[in-house]
Amino acid sequence: MPPEAVDSWILTIGNEILIGRIVNTNASWLASRLTLLGFRVARIITVPDDVDEIAEEVGRAVARARVVVTTGGLGPTYDDVTLEGVSKALGRRLTINKHALDMVRRFYSDKGLKLTEERIKMAMLPDGAEAIPNPVGAAPGSLLDYGGTLIISLPGVPAEMKEMFTSHVEPRLRELAPNVVIVECYARIIGVPESSLAPVVKRAAGSRKEVYLKTHPKGHELEGPVIEVRALASAGSIEEARVKALSVVEEVVSYARERGGKVGEEGCTG
Amino acid sequence: MPPEAVDSWILTIGNEILIGRIVNTNASWLASRLTLLGFRVARIITVPDDVDEIAEEVGRAVARARVVVTTGGLGPTYDDVTLEGVSKALGRRLTINKHALDMVRRFYSDKGLKLTEERIKMAMLPDGAEAIPNPVGAAPGSLLDYGGTLIISLPGVPAEMKEMFTSHVEPRLRELAPNVVIVECYARIIGVPESSLAPVVKRAAGSRKEVYLKTHPKGHELEGPVIEVRALASAGSIEEARVKALSVVEEVVSYARERGGKVGEEGCTG
Repeated sequence: MPPEAVDSWILTIGNEILIGRIVNTNASWLASRLTLLGFRVARIITVPDDVDEIAEEVGRAVARARVVVTTGGLGPTYDDVTLEGVSKALGRRLTINKHALDMVRRFYSDKGLKLTEERIKMAMLPDGAEAIPNPVGAAPGSLLDYGGTLIISLPGVPAEMKEMFTSHVEPRLRELAPNVVIVECYARIIGVPESSLAPVVKRAAGSRKEVYLKTHPKGHELEGPVIEVRALASAGSIEEARVKALSVVEEVVSYARERGGKVGEEGCTG
Repeated sequence: MPPEAVDSWILTIGNEILIGRIVNTNASWLASRLTLLGFRVARIITVPDDVDEIAEEVGRAVARARVVVTTGGLGPTYDDVTLEGVSKALGRRLTINKHALDMVRRFYSDKGLKLTEERIKMAMLPDGAEAIPNPVGAAPGSLLDYGGTLIISLPGVPAEMKEMFTSHVEPRLRELAPNVVIVECYARIIGVPESSLAPVVKRAAGSRKEVYLKTHPKGHELEGPVIEVRALASAGSIEEARVKALSVVEEVVSYARERGGKVGEEGCTG
């Protein structure tokens, strides 16, 4: 990623990921959105449902990133302790947030249900946090500006997380995001082993520090090798980013062609 | 997870995960296997292809876990730097491993290809590491016993990673693993909001510290709520683990039934 990138960290809270029952699709969705906004995602960390372990990773994230997004652990059960962890990491108190309480109260009272201790718990946010409305489920999110670092906590249910990120978080992140456009160009090279391409990949990457170049082996190294070459570039405009990314891909492609390689699918996205 | 559990950390190396292009299915596969072997997976961390960032997370992992598994970054290209990061974290030199070099040489010479700088690079392991044969691709893995902590580095290509883990790593981990069996029991509760179940979930979890109990909302909190209750227990035998897990699930189920809940699918696995 380009050196001007602003760092973001994604923290996924939940034992269900750590025992391998659930694949962490929330993190890849968020990583893709943050990347397209121009942030560098420097870590994705899955943490157990444990206040101290959450606080530890939030503390590290806040010290190093401008944007920290957590998912999971906002619900009504005893092991939903994400905001307790966030509060502990930042030395803030966890208190009832008036707006969050209104959201939770409205959610349940529409069905004639009362507030209980477990429902009120979902309205407890770190001191100074803003409540993020949840148009899909019960638990509000939390957005906290901590000395210029935004700490955003969203539920783990994908439909809730995505809706809240898109409607409420993304507009806020655009204010922080570097003013860049991201374009990715790719080509599929057939018939040349990855180890034979390695020298040109190194050279092409070295000549263009602001382009992130990577090869992905898609077949067997020797029996019918297929290598996907991908270059991600950021710039002030789509055209500029595209030219940067394409020039790097083309350097690898022409080297491969000289060595008998064929080129399959190629193109750019972003 | 039970207190007797032995900690393991999973480190996924690769920018392609951090930009959201690839979902981290390697980590969930490994997490599931490590859990079934009796380990507690305490972290899953995705790290960029950067020597210092890899070294930082390997250093933390080694200080706290008995088993550290890394995937990705073992290939021939300039950004495959996992073992450089591992070596740096442990203060070991990265040197050509004789067995690894034999593996790499054989892999290429079968097709009449010579060793090049990039191919030899795949045979460089931290001093003292064992080479893990790769029956699917070119890059050998690395297994290092560092004062009783095993650091295992596998390729990122899923077919290679899984084959190497199953054939070579799992037998070694069984020697380290606590001698326990893991059973998970579950029930699907229909018609009771998660927030209404929260008190019994807290009580049931508190009464059985060695069982890991969790509820997963699968529907809307109020409009047709569906809650999956899952209890994971470890014990010396399948029967014992099953009894522990079932008793906790049943406590939640009977509470839900008293409140008009219906029970859908239920059972145990493991």
